[in-house]
Amino acid sequence: MAPRLRCLLLFLAQLLVLVAGGRWQDFLHLPSERSGGGHEDVVGTRWAVLIAGSNGYYNYRHQADVCHAYQIMKKGGLKDENIIVFMYDDIANHPDNPRPGVIINHPTGADVYAGVPKDYTGKDVNVKNFLAVLLGNKSAVTGGSGKVVDSGPDDHVFVYYSDHGGPGVLGMPSDEYLYAKDLLQTLKKKHAAGTYKTLVFYLEACESGSIFEGLLPNDINVYATTAANAEESSWGTYCPGDEQGPPPEFDTCLGDLYSVAWMEDSDVHNLRTESLKQQYEVVKDRTSAHNTYSLGSHVMQYGDLKQNIQSLYLFMGTDPANDNATFHSLRRFSGAVNQRDADLVYFWQKYRKSGEGTPEKKEARKRLLQVMARRSHVDSSVELIGGLLFGSEEGSKVLNGVRPAGQPLVDDWDCLKAMVDTYEEQCGSLAQYGMKHMRSLANICNAGVRAEAMAKVASQACAIVHSE
Amino acid sequence: MAPRLRCLLLFLAQLLVLVAGGRWQDFLHLPSERSGGGHEDVVGTRWAVLIAGSNGYYNYRHQADVCHAYQIMKKGGLKDENIIVFMYDDIANHPDNPRPGVIINHPTGADVYAGVPKDYTGKDVNVKNFLAVLLGNKSAVTGGSGKVVDSGPDDHVFVYYSDHGGPGVLGMPSDEYLYAKDLLQTLKKKHAAGTYKTLVFYLEACESGSIFEGLLPNDINVYATTAANAEESSWGTYCPGDEQGPPPEFDTCLGDLYSVAWMEDSDVHNLRTESLKQQYEVVKDRTSAHNTYSLGSHVMQYGDLKQNIQSLYLFMGTDPANDNATFHSLRRFSGAVNQRDADLVYFWQKYRKSGEGTPEKKEARKRLLQVMARRSHVDSSVELIGGLLFGSEEGSKVLNGVRPAGQPLVDDWDCLKAMVDTYEEQCGSLAQYGMKHMRSLANICNAGVRAEAMAKVASQACAIVHSE
Repeated sequence: MAPRLRCLLLFLAQLLVLVAGGRWQDFLHLPSERSGGGHEDVVGTRWAVLIAGSNGYYNYRHQADVCHAYQIMKKGGLKDENIIVFMYDDIANHPDNPRPGVIINHPTGADVYAGVPKDYTGKDVNVKNFLAVLLGNKSAVTGGSGKVVDSGPDDHVFVYYSDHGGPGVLGMPSDEYLYAKDLLQTLKKKHAAGTYKTLVFYLEACESGSIFEGLLPNDINVYATTAANAEESSWGTYCPGDEQGPPPEFDTCLGDLYSVAWMEDSDVHNLRTESLKQQYEVVKDRTSAHNTYSLGSHVMQYGDLKQNIQSLYLFMGTDPANDNATFHSLRRFSGAVNQRDADLVYFWQKYRKSGEGTPEKKEARKRLLQVMARRSHVDSSVELIGGLLFGSEEGSKVLNGVRPAGQPLVDDWDCLKAMVDTYEEQCGSLAQYGMKHMRSLANICNAGVRAEAMAKVASQACAIVHSE
Repeated sequence: MAPRLRCLLLFLAQLLVLVAGGRWQDFLHLPSERSGGGHEDVVGTRWAVLIAGSNGYYNYRHQADVCHAYQIMKKGGLKDENIIVFMYDDIANHPDNPRPGVIINHPTGADVYAGVPKDYTGKDVNVKNFLAVLLGNKSAVTGGSGKVVDSGPDDHVFVYYSDHGGPGVLGMPSDEYLYAKDLLQTLKKKHAAGTYKTLVFYLEACESGSIFEGLLPNDINVYATTAANAEESSWGTYCPGDEQGPPPEFDTCLGDLYSVAWMEDSDVHNLRTESLKQQYEVVKDRTSAHNTYSLGSHVMQYGDLKQNIQSLYLFMGTDPANDNATFHSLRRFSGAVNQRDADLVYFWQKYRKSGEGTPEKKEARKRLLQVMARRSHVDSSVELIGGLLFGSEEGSKVLNGVRPAGQPLVDDWDCLKAMVDTYEEQCGSLAQYGMKHMRSLANICNAGVRAEAMAKVASQACAIVHSE
């Protein structure tokens, strides 16, 4: 065979392999676009901040996600001194955990808990510590290992957050919320301090798009992707009742859809040759149930999108075992549960499995009843507040209104915080589920309602709803 | 090979096949024991009465069972004029049914609804009609096709009942219950009238053993098997969340464990060569999750046990397609749901699947809350009644006491009926779930409490529980 023909055939064969693997983009990239792609050396240091913002066995999945992320960073070559983990740490040895001392993030997965550094656990997982760690402000940290992102101008920082959320907020194991404005202020401050080259933020939470939408500038070298847009929930996966559910004794979801999608992609590939953009495309496809959105959400990109041509290797390193890995498509997800229903799945499993007439069954029913009644109470009270403020027809419009894309949730964040405080004083904690109403409270601010008017109406509404 | 050796080998091979199939009993039966086994001709006529005592899409499985049973009788050669079907008939064309006009009784099963005679549907499925049909008392029947078991002394009657139940009672689609005493009286009356040779009763319901325990004589040629003993629930199967669940769009259990066990056995075997006893053994094993009782119940036999050596063929005929069928063991069940939780599984599925923030989700949550709150109310009120009648410690003992095996639930059935009426007047309907408390009400009778004392205490207890 003539060398030219052989070369053409080889070229066509390679093209076929890449197209079949859905990686035709690889052919379109010029070498200069694949910054870091072929480089073994990274100037500066890689840092990772990994945080699970929830606690409770029914939220198993968030801490499982974060442990799994740690294993990826570790295998990628990051040093423990550069990986900072926030997790409540009540899962591995929880009495409900059928495998004491072990956490899994996949139905047939290995332990991801072993070796995870317990930098910030229990009540030390909080907003103040998280923001101080990001800033590298050691003196502002309380408790924990004291590790902070002590980074320099050439360093690459990767942040991964997995939890419940709501429009404009992310959860913490305590009732304190992390508001988008405070997170963004921290990122801007860090940029101003010149303590990173590029910062990548992966965020799993309901309405996670709202954390960056209209808020994250494109000139501070921050690139973010989120599990959901600003108006929808994100999803748990490997849940009881899914076709590919957890081992039957688990009763809880093992992972989250977006999180598991990026991690299972990172697990098996040579990350030198995969860009942030490529991973975004893979994750977007998988999290949307292959663009059907039947069970899933819209994965979004925010900030400095130019950064997404960079290699994952710059942030996560790469597992040497994958050096010769070729791309192969991952298993399709077989099911997912709305993030806000995932804890109910657990309560339901406890009820369903406990023996008829047993105290456990009675207790499980009581718990389910309480949780659902509380949710019903929160929904009804917010709806009623809207009606009492604006009239019932107009109220629904105001509460559910969504600002055009590119605009932040609220103009006056202090007003939103005050509205949340006022609501909680009169009606009890919004808690994980109630974070979904942040948009309604933000819209009440945007409509110019003052805190005193809100307090009066909330008191009235919650008295009525309580007495029902 | 010498003919003798060949014969011995053949014998051993047959023995091996039967032992491997768990049918070693076949070898122990003398031909004289296998009455009817080899006979093509049955003196007299075969009659079947098939009844599903529930309605509602969440009870899909009971009507699916009964339709399936009809198909077995029909294929077995029974004539439509001798098969009387009671079913509410709200399933096949229910708006929730993903396959309009079709009912299935297995995840991959074919339609079992086609051809089913609609003898008694809707409100005509009631105690009065059922007992009149059994007796052949045409003039006592209201509505429906008017078909009755117009049988003679040589006839074989098969009765199959699938529904919710409770100690001493079986459900009907209306709030009216069928009490064991009334059913037994009817059977005795039919025996006295000499209108059957043998009557076989297959019964699927919670605490179904209590219908016959200490009540069914062994000298009226009635042989009964029940899904459960007198103290436990029976189980639904092919339920959402089971490994072998229904197609995902169904959201409801497709069958019941005991029912499907006997029917899937009858579906594939030559019923000339299978005795009632053999089927009982197979069904008992399968319904108890192979004697583990992890998810399942104790299948029981009552009445004239001598009858159980008779062939199934005498009651169900046999499908000619199975004439050459050899025994093979059936698929193990992969899961089951307590009969009393099966409707909650449906309500839960509706909740889980409906989109966040939709009116459907709100409605589904409301329904789940109502159902669970109602159950909690029933349980608490009965417990409190016990406490108020006997003191809280003694009350629990009295309410939960179980009489020795062989004794009926209650001595004075009219007292039990009066207690039920009194409770329902003061506290609302017991309904499907509340039937579980029949034993407590029976024990209140057995303890000699009078209706007036009960009325006073029930009124007090339910006022307290209501106000909680």
